[in-house]
Amino acid sequence: LKKISVIGGGSWATAIVKMFVENKTHVSWYLRKKENVVAVSSTGRNPNYLSFLSLPLDLLHVSDDINEIINSSNTIIFAVPSAYLAALTDLIDPDILKEKNIITSIKGTVGEYNMLPSIYLSNKFDVPSSRQAIIAGPCHAEEIAMGRKTYVTIASENAAFAYELSNAISTSYIHAQTSSDLIGIEYAGVYKNIIGIACGIAKGLNYGDNFQAVLVSNAIYELDTFLKAVHKPAHQPAASAYLGDLLVTAYSNFSRNRAFGEMIGRGYSVLMAKEQMTMVAEGYYASKGIFAITAKQAIQAPIVSAVYRILHNHLSPYSAFKLLENQLQ
Amino acid sequence: LKKISVIGGGSWATAIVKMFVENKTHVSWYLRKKENVVAVSSTGRNPNYLSFLSLPLDLLHVSDDINEIINSSNTIIFAVPSAYLAALTDLIDPDILKEKNIITSIKGTVGEYNMLPSIYLSNKFDVPSSRQAIIAGPCHAEEIAMGRKTYVTIASENAAFAYELSNAISTSYIHAQTSSDLIGIEYAGVYKNIIGIACGIAKGLNYGDNFQAVLVSNAIYELDTFLKAVHKPAHQPAASAYLGDLLVTAYSNFSRNRAFGEMIGRGYSVLMAKEQMTMVAEGYYASKGIFAITAKQAIQAPIVSAVYRILHNHLSPYSAFKLLENQLQ
Repeated sequence: LKKISVIGGGSWATAIVKMFVENKTHVSWYLRKKENVVAVSSTGRNPNYLSFLSLPLDLLHVSDDINEIINSSNTIIFAVPSAYLAALTDLIDPDILKEKNIITSIKGTVGEYNMLPSIYLSNKFDVPSSRQAIIAGPCHAEEIAMGRKTYVTIASENAAFAYELSNAISTSYIHAQTSSDLIGIEYAGVYKNIIGIACGIAKGLNYGDNFQAVLVSNAIYELDTFLKAVHKPAHQPAASAYLGDLLVTAYSNFSRNRAFGEMIGRGYSVLMAKEQMTMVAEGYYASKGIFAITAKQAIQAPIVSAVYRILHNHLSPYSAFKLLENQLQ
Repeated sequence: LKKISVIGGGSWATAIVKMFVENKTHVSWYLRKKENVVAVSSTGRNPNYLSFLSLPLDLLHVSDDINEIINSSNTIIFAVPSAYLAALTDLIDPDILKEKNIITSIKGTVGEYNMLPSIYLSNKFDVPSSRQAIIAGPCHAEEIAMGRKTYVTIASENAAFAYELSNAISTSYIHAQTSSDLIGIEYAGVYKNIIGIACGIAKGLNYGDNFQAVLVSNAIYELDTFLKAVHKPAHQPAASAYLGDLLVTAYSNFSRNRAFGEMIGRGYSVLMAKEQMTMVAEGYYASKGIFAITAKQAIQAPIVSAVYRILHNHLSPYSAFKLLENQLQ
């Protein structure tokens, strides 16, 4: 892989850029703000995220013109918050996306459509699944920036494409593996944000480590049940692609979803908690999308239901968790 | 349940005493040291563990005579480190254990025999499985002492007995559930100590959160594979009984197994690390016992193998984890 394009300027997009430049792949990088384009082009550092990371300027082309960036390579990686994807894709000229490979690394459903990002993009731009892939795995972007051992899963129905991508990012500290289960892994990435909120709510309600372990144990079973119900293929192997992210989010003190949940558990209204955050936690929307699926297909998902009822249905966190207690094992 | 006997003076045994006295069950409590018998009998506090906890003296009978304690009720709960169980049972008059119900709450194999505690006791004292049960679940004893919500699983082939016990300890903060899968849950309690050591070694070797999530994700699959191989019954439900303990141990900074592993990962010899601890981490012995089973039955268990080779086979932690990296998904 000689050249790719990355869409997005957050810490995760920055980590993705680093993974590719590490093996000398050229990266065309779309950043929304002119000032960030100037900063990155002149210093090789993203001033807002992972700014300690110095990227090689000879491998970077940075621009705030999304169509120019998409035009400049055949492989386009979308790494933006799910909430921004729809608005962003409206800027894209559909004609230039034809024949491109589309990779997403987005953990959430696409807002009003409640769609997985890969499905949203394939619908909107008529991309066949053979030209789609996702990048998944338990990834604190900071740890990739620091070169700490990280497992990444490239999932695609196109095995050759997945293999090419995994080769491109494999380094001493990136263990890249492939999987054919794009949809299952993408769902797992959405689900974990809801679980992160649930863990935060539990913390805010002053539950302890014993209960947190019960909540996460049950979440693992609940995710397994969900994936088996919505999606036929068996989802082993690639343990880390399904569970790793869930564990990082559940146990990280830096998770946005967990922080949002903790405010809710402490008594903030949903509105107040949303206002405290510069960007709404992805699990907020995901709980709506995933709950709709579980309701429609009658899938047992007590944790998702509890989070949904708290965030979107005015049930108090205390009451919802008292009910939830009796549904956990 | 009117009366039980508890064998053991650690924090977990103390938490068990609390669970039973909460609902007015009388507890006969064996403590090895005379001075602790005097202290508990006079103050209602265990001076060494959870000493902030005040237990009701009118429900307690404390003694350093193990046979007297066993004689005084029909239900005997063993809550001692697995390493001490064999020596302790040598003190017991086999005749007085006849017709008693034997409950264990011990997370480890019995040393030189590499046996599950329940199997060790049933062999030694000829106890039928209908009179055996275990108490399991993700339990920081401190949280039980503080009355924080905790899920406990009583596993026994005797459903009526399990139900009676679960009833006896159910309170507003103890959610007690029953299971028939005594052996599977007991194995899970042994396994998690080895995983705790693995997580500690990873920390000591300076792996980060991303890798820890990969390690724990794979451990969950590895435990599942192990249980299916050694032990036929399907092991759902009771998620928390299988996975909860693993999660608590993997993510707790207070786990003895994790602390032991971290010393090893940092470069202490096994001998030095053992000397640093007042009591050897249970996973040290468990890794030997479980590894022997996986080797004999050709079960894929890369994490257990890595820990075994480091602790018992002189492989360096660095080399073992480099090999392990390629076996994880």
